[in-house]
Formats: sequence, structure tokens, C-alpha cells
Amino acid sequence: MSHILIQNGYVITMDGPPIRNGVVLIEDSKITYVGTEVQQAQHIIDAKGCVVMPGLVNVHNHAAMTLFRGYSDDLPLKEWLEEHIWPAEAQLKDEDVYHGTLLACLEMIRSGTTAFADMYFFMDQAARAVEESGMRASLSHGMIELFDKAKGDADLKEGIRFAKKWNNAADGRITTMYGPHAPNTCSKEFLARVTTQARSDNIGMHIHILETKAELLEMKEKYSMCSIHLLDEIGFLDHNVLAAHCVWLSSGDIDILAEKRVNIVHCPVSNMKLASGIAPVPELLNRGANVALGTDGCASNNSLDMFEEMKTAALLHKVNSMDPTALPANQILKMATVNGAKALKIPAGQIKAGALADIIIVDMQRPHLLPNHDLESHLVYAAKGSDVRTTIVNGRVLMEDGVVVSLNQEKVMEQAADSALKLIQRVNEQ
Amino acid sequence: MSHILIQNGYVITMDGPPIRNGVVLIEDSKITYVGTEVQQAQHIIDAKGCVVMPGLVNVHNHAAMTLFRGYSDDLPLKEWLEEHIWPAEAQLKDEDVYHGTLLACLEMIRSGTTAFADMYFFMDQAARAVEESGMRASLSHGMIELFDKAKGDADLKEGIRFAKKWNNAADGRITTMYGPHAPNTCSKEFLARVTTQARSDNIGMHIHILETKAELLEMKEKYSMCSIHLLDEIGFLDHNVLAAHCVWLSSGDIDILAEKRVNIVHCPVSNMKLASGIAPVPELLNRGANVALGTDGCASNNSLDMFEEMKTAALLHKVNSMDPTALPANQILKMATVNGAKALKIPAGQIKAGALADIIIVDMQRPHLLPNHDLESHLVYAAKGSDVRTTIVNGRVLMEDGVVVSLNQEKVMEQAADSALKLIQRVNEQ
Repeated sequence: MSHILIQNGYVITMDGPPIRNGVVLIEDSKITYVGTEVQQAQHIIDAKGCVVMPGLVNVHNHAAMTLFRGYSDDLPLKEWLEEHIWPAEAQLKDEDVYHGTLLACLEMIRSGTTAFADMYFFMDQAARAVEESGMRASLSHGMIELFDKAKGDADLKEGIRFAKKWNNAADGRITTMYGPHAPNTCSKEFLARVTTQARSDNIGMHIHILETKAELLEMKEKYSMCSIHLLDEIGFLDHNVLAAHCVWLSSGDIDILAEKRVNIVHCPVSNMKLASGIAPVPELLNRGANVALGTDGCASNNSLDMFEEMKTAALLHKVNSMDPTALPANQILKMATVNGAKALKIPAGQIKAGALADIIIVDMQRPHLLPNHDLESHLVYAAKGSDVRTTIVNGRVLMEDGVVVSLNQEKVMEQAADSALKLIQRVNEQ
Repeated sequence: MSHILIQNGYVITMDGPPIRNGVVLIEDSKITYVGTEVQQAQHIIDAKGCVVMPGLVNVHNHAAMTLFRGYSDDLPLKEWLEEHIWPAEAQLKDEDVYHGTLLACLEMIRSGTTAFADMYFFMDQAARAVEESGMRASLSHGMIELFDKAKGDADLKEGIRFAKKWNNAADGRITTMYGPHAPNTCSKEFLARVTTQARSDNIGMHIHILETKAELLEMKEKYSMCSIHLLDEIGFLDHNVLAAHCVWLSSGDIDILAEKRVNIVHCPVSNMKLASGIAPVPELLNRGANVALGTDGCASNNSLDMFEEMKTAALLHKVNSMDPTALPANQILKMATVNGAKALKIPAGQIKAGALADIIIVDMQRPHLLPNHDLESHLVYAAKGSDVRTTIVNGRVLMEDGVVVSLNQEKVMEQAADSALKLIQRVNEQ
């Protein structure tokens, strides 16, 4: 039995008040003790001067898009997608997705993310990367039907094959979802088919909803109703749904999302960078909706650092509501931990006995994190992913004292850079 | 003669196209060669895999406020100022300002800032800290007259004494300005007096302008005109003025600021965190105004990392204008280097022969900075202060390979933490 003891840290449990000089005991994949009593274990981690907290949960990602980081920025959305991202994605090979996802996992482990939700292509390769990295993830094959029945059939078939093959794989670290792309890229019939399949398989669905005003206008034109009402009409919306973005919501939409207990993924950096708009997050939270945070893919961020996402979320909603009390630090921390874990249906996001041992240790004794007036505030407003020293997932140490042990960092970096270079060469040869 | 040679890096000169495998030669305080020819020097820095670029210029700071980092966040502005920040500032001692400014310099050196503008109290102590740290700074004694003539007299006297004592001190690294606080905290007469003094001494002025809507309303109530028009009327505005914030500008105000060549300091993180509003930066730039970037003090940010400020500026204006092409990466880099140096009247902000040797070296071979499609984009959208390896100011290496050599890091951290603790104890005893 593998025991890990973390002691002397400031434990932010997200399950009650913080514990000074706290003791956290991990046995196998779970936390078995949290408190201040002395415990024994083979592997002892001294967290003096550090915060011990639940790992961050990145609930919307297209991990392999790390290969497109910096490939085409500052462009109009249509030109960016049609002339750059789509042509590049058309050249993706399965090995690229493996290398890109490994690079993403490396970046996430280094910056304190322990679990993420991913939607992309060649997902067997993404799953292989997640399995090797030691991370936890909820994976879905992205199904972009584009109103083409044959494409929809093939996509759903692949989605089902992938979901069944990998659900609960890698000691339960990998779970799966169905990934219908968006209400304006999939037909109503296709969305209804996926819903039936998901209910029958008891599998969740990961979808983009109302990321852009263009989607809202298209839906109103086509269906005389917005995406939320259409999805509600076909019975799509429930607590097994992960809805990314949700920027262009009406007040009625917010009520529906809250009532149906849909999990909403706020992606502030991506929404700002692509000029998509500002999601009504304070209103969603006020009405009881579960709102978590996601980075989106690297092409539209260009970082997978959840610390940055936390700070940006807090800042954006303060200025947008002209209220400096909006989204305070403790609420932001909850979104990045508790709410994210809830969205992925994993018993994590808190440091408590019985929870999964998905834990990070953040070094607070750095010049930009002094003085120690308020460590919760520092985590949101001053800390960076690079302040994470140790990352533990499922009771296994993936990074200790800044050294990633689950992956060969040099090799992952080299192979991803090489994949990206060759990919762009193929694009340029077209 | 002290020679430093930086070779094998990707040199972003901000004075023309980047140079691959570039060579930068530093002699004493200046850059004497930039190109690709082999050069000789005693001290050779290998920048393989790194970007070599001008140091970042943080044009609005209250450096010693590092002591208040995390002290009181997420509060309404009035409560924050009146019940927390001002009572704490009332307990500040001169040694606190020394320790707080040293901590700020340490954080800035580590995150790639080479020069900053500061306005605060006990400025002899701030100057002492800057002198020891090796940084470059433009310092001003903050003069908050509050419509009290005696206070105004005393403040101006101290402002003049400080400015004359320290201007061009520390081998020219320290310059000084007059620091009238804001148009709504100083009388028109006082602002006119400072203007006369500044013109006569050929010294610039550092001021907050229209940070909040409250200032705009107060000014309109009191003078039937806004701050910009009042300052213009008394002849305050010219190219020697550093105007922080400038959030609540009319179109006419923008014309005046551009025409008078006022240097505007955009502080997006602070403006978002305090819910002050969004400055019309794209409009200012379009009309030819010089706009630089600043972090503001740590109480309202809570970081001095200019990389974060760059990314936040780009993101904020994209979403605010609903235009993903707004403030592209190269424009943001110019704001943080060229425009900042111009605002501080220092011949820096570019890597070219004759410029001051204020240079940083950023390690791009990190997981979150791969692949290398576009290094300018990475600097704005993916890099962090923690990616800076080496910081050079005035031809002197202040940090090399992540180790600060101009300051005793442990001692600075310990003394600042101790100062902050005792300061808050004094506040709590009141």
C-alpha cells in the first residue's frame, strides 16, 4: 500500500476553514486523513511555507491544440478559423494528437492542474497521452456533423466506440463523454440522437453553447429560438452536460441552465482573446448554476495555466459589473476546484477524507507572494502556475519540487516541437 | 571597461526585424553593437533558446505597497480605501518604505522589468532601495494637498527637496518627477503652482487622471469641466507629464492628450480589480497618443509582473471592442518597451547601438512556450515573468540564470515580511 504524508503546510481544504501546519495522509488513490495529528508514511513531503490545496480542474480544453500555440493570433475570427486553424487541423495525424496532448499534460502538471475535460480528434492518442502522464481526464471525440447525415453517423459511431473503450480506463483516471460540437454545427436531429445514446449509456455530453453572437443569430434565424431553448426542447440539458462558454445567454436561458443543473464552463481568456463576449457568470452563480473554469485550447488562450484563468475571471467580472466585490477570491477558488470536480463527476476538488488524492502544493515563499496577509487572495491574484512545486493525482506524485517524474520532459518537448514543425510544413505545402 | 556579450539568442530589437542568432555587445552602461558578427568580451552570456529583448518598463507603481499585497481585496472601493489602505498607510514608517520598495525591486528584476515610475511617501527610502537594487526608476514624492494650503506647502517643499536631491543620482539610474496626486485631491491653484515649479526646474509630473467615474462627476460638479480640460486650462499638460489611468475620457479629452503629447499609463489589471472602468486605449493609440503600461501598486493588482499586464491589456481591449485584432502582440510589446521608455525620457526600450543596456533574456524552451511558431506572440500571450532568466540594467547584470545578484533575496524577503507584519500589528492596535 502506497502512503504519502504531506505535513507542515497551510491546507486549504475547500471543505471548511484552512488548517495551519496541517497533515494530509494519502493511501493509494485516496485521502484518508486531514487534520493536525501526527501520522506515519513511507513518503513524507514537507510543505513548510507552502499551500496544500485541491488540484485545479480545467473543464474545457482541446489539449492537442498546444501544437497551434502562437500559430495565428490577433486575426478576425473567420479568417483565423477558415484560413489558419481548420487547414492546419486538416493536416493533423494521430501521432500529432499524442505529442500535442502530452505537451498539454506536461504544462498542466507543471501549473497545478490535476484533471481536465478534453474534446478533440484522434482521441485514442489523447487517451494514451493522458494514461502515460498520470493525469485525470474526461475525454470526448468531437462530433462536428455539419448537417451531413453520413458524417454524423460516422462521428457518432466513432464517439461511441471511443467512449466505451476508454470509460473508466487507467485505474479510473480516464472517463468519457460524447462531444457534439455545438447547436449551430450539428442538426437538431443529430443532437437528439446523441442525447438518446448518452442517456442509454449513462454517459455525459460535452458541448460548446453560445460562444459567439453569430451562433445566437444563426439559431434565431433557423429555429426562431436560441440554442438553450432548442437543447431544452429535445431534452438535451441535464446535470450530465458540460456546456462550454455560454456567453450569449438571456435571463430565461440562465434560469433553464440553473434549473436543469447543467455544468457551465467559463473560459474568460479565450472569450476575451477571440472577442466572443463576456458570459454572465455572476448571474449564473447567483441563480445557483454550477460554473467551473476552463482554458479552452491553446490556439485561443495561449496558455493552460489555471492560475491565470482564475485571476482573469475575477478581474473581468469586477470591471464588467463595475463592482469590485464581484467574484471574490474564495468563490474563484471554488470554481476552479469544487465546481470543476462536480462538473466532471469526480469525488475530488476538496481535501477531505474519502476524496481522491488530487492535490497540489504551492510555494508561497517567493518574492511576489509576500507578505502572507491572505493566502487565498494570493492564490487568485498573485500566484502563477510556476509557483506549483508538487502535483499529485490519484495518490501518485507526478511532479515533486518542480521536477516532473511521470513524463520525460525533454522528450515530450522535443517531440511536440517536431510534430508542430512538420504539421505546419504540410499545411504550407497544400 | 566592462564588456558583456550576449550571443545565440533571438533578438527582438523593437527597432526593426528580429535577429536570429543575434549578437549584442554591451560596453559600460550602453549597447554598442547589435548584429550577427562575432564580438569579444570578458563576460559572455549564451542566450541559445532564449529571446533577448529590451527590459520592460512599468510606468505607474507605488512600489512599497508590496507590503499591502493581499491585505484587503474584493471590497467596495470606499471601504477598501478608508477602512483599510489609508489607516495602514498612516502607520507606515520610513524603514517600511525601504523594505517594501526593495521587495518590489526584487519582484520586478525577477520578472523582467528594468525601469519603473514610482509615486509614494518617504521617498528617500524608496530611492535608497532603487539605488541598491541596481534598477532604473523615475521617482516622485506623492503630494496629496487635499485643499489644505499648509499641507500643500509642506508637500511641495518636500517634493522639491526630494526631486533636487535625487535627480540623476545612482549613475543616472534615478530621475525624479513632481507627483501631484490627482485633479480631485489637489486644488487648481496647487496644480498650477506645481506646474510652474516643474517648468522652471525642467522636471516632469506624475499624476493620476480620471481613474474613476467619481472623479469625473466631482470635477464636473466643482468646475463644470472634466479633469483634462481643467489641467489644460492651467497649462499642466505636455510631453513631460505621466498621466496614470485616464479611464474616463471623452473624445475631446483624447484629442487634447494626443495633441499635448502627454504620456498615458494604462493599468488594466488595477482598473479591472478596482472596477474603475476601461480606458479607451485603442482610440488613444489611433490618435497618436503615447500609451505605456503600468501595474499600479500591489494593493490593487496584486502583482508587478509586466508580462501579465501585457496579456491582460491585449485581452481586455479585444473583448471590449469586440475585435480580436485590437492591440495585437507587437503593439503591446511596443507599449511595454518603446512607449514606456519614451514616457520616462530614457534612451532605452530598444536594442540598438547607443541605447542604454536595459535588457532581459527570456527562456523560450519551456513546455508552455512551445512550439516556436511566433515568439512575439508567446511573449504577450504565453510567457510569464518567471520565464525571465537574466535581467541587465545600465550594463550591469542584476539577475543571471534566475539568480538575483544585486540583492540578497532571502534578506529582502524576510525584512519585508517582517515590516508588513509589524505594520499591520500597529494598524490593529489603533
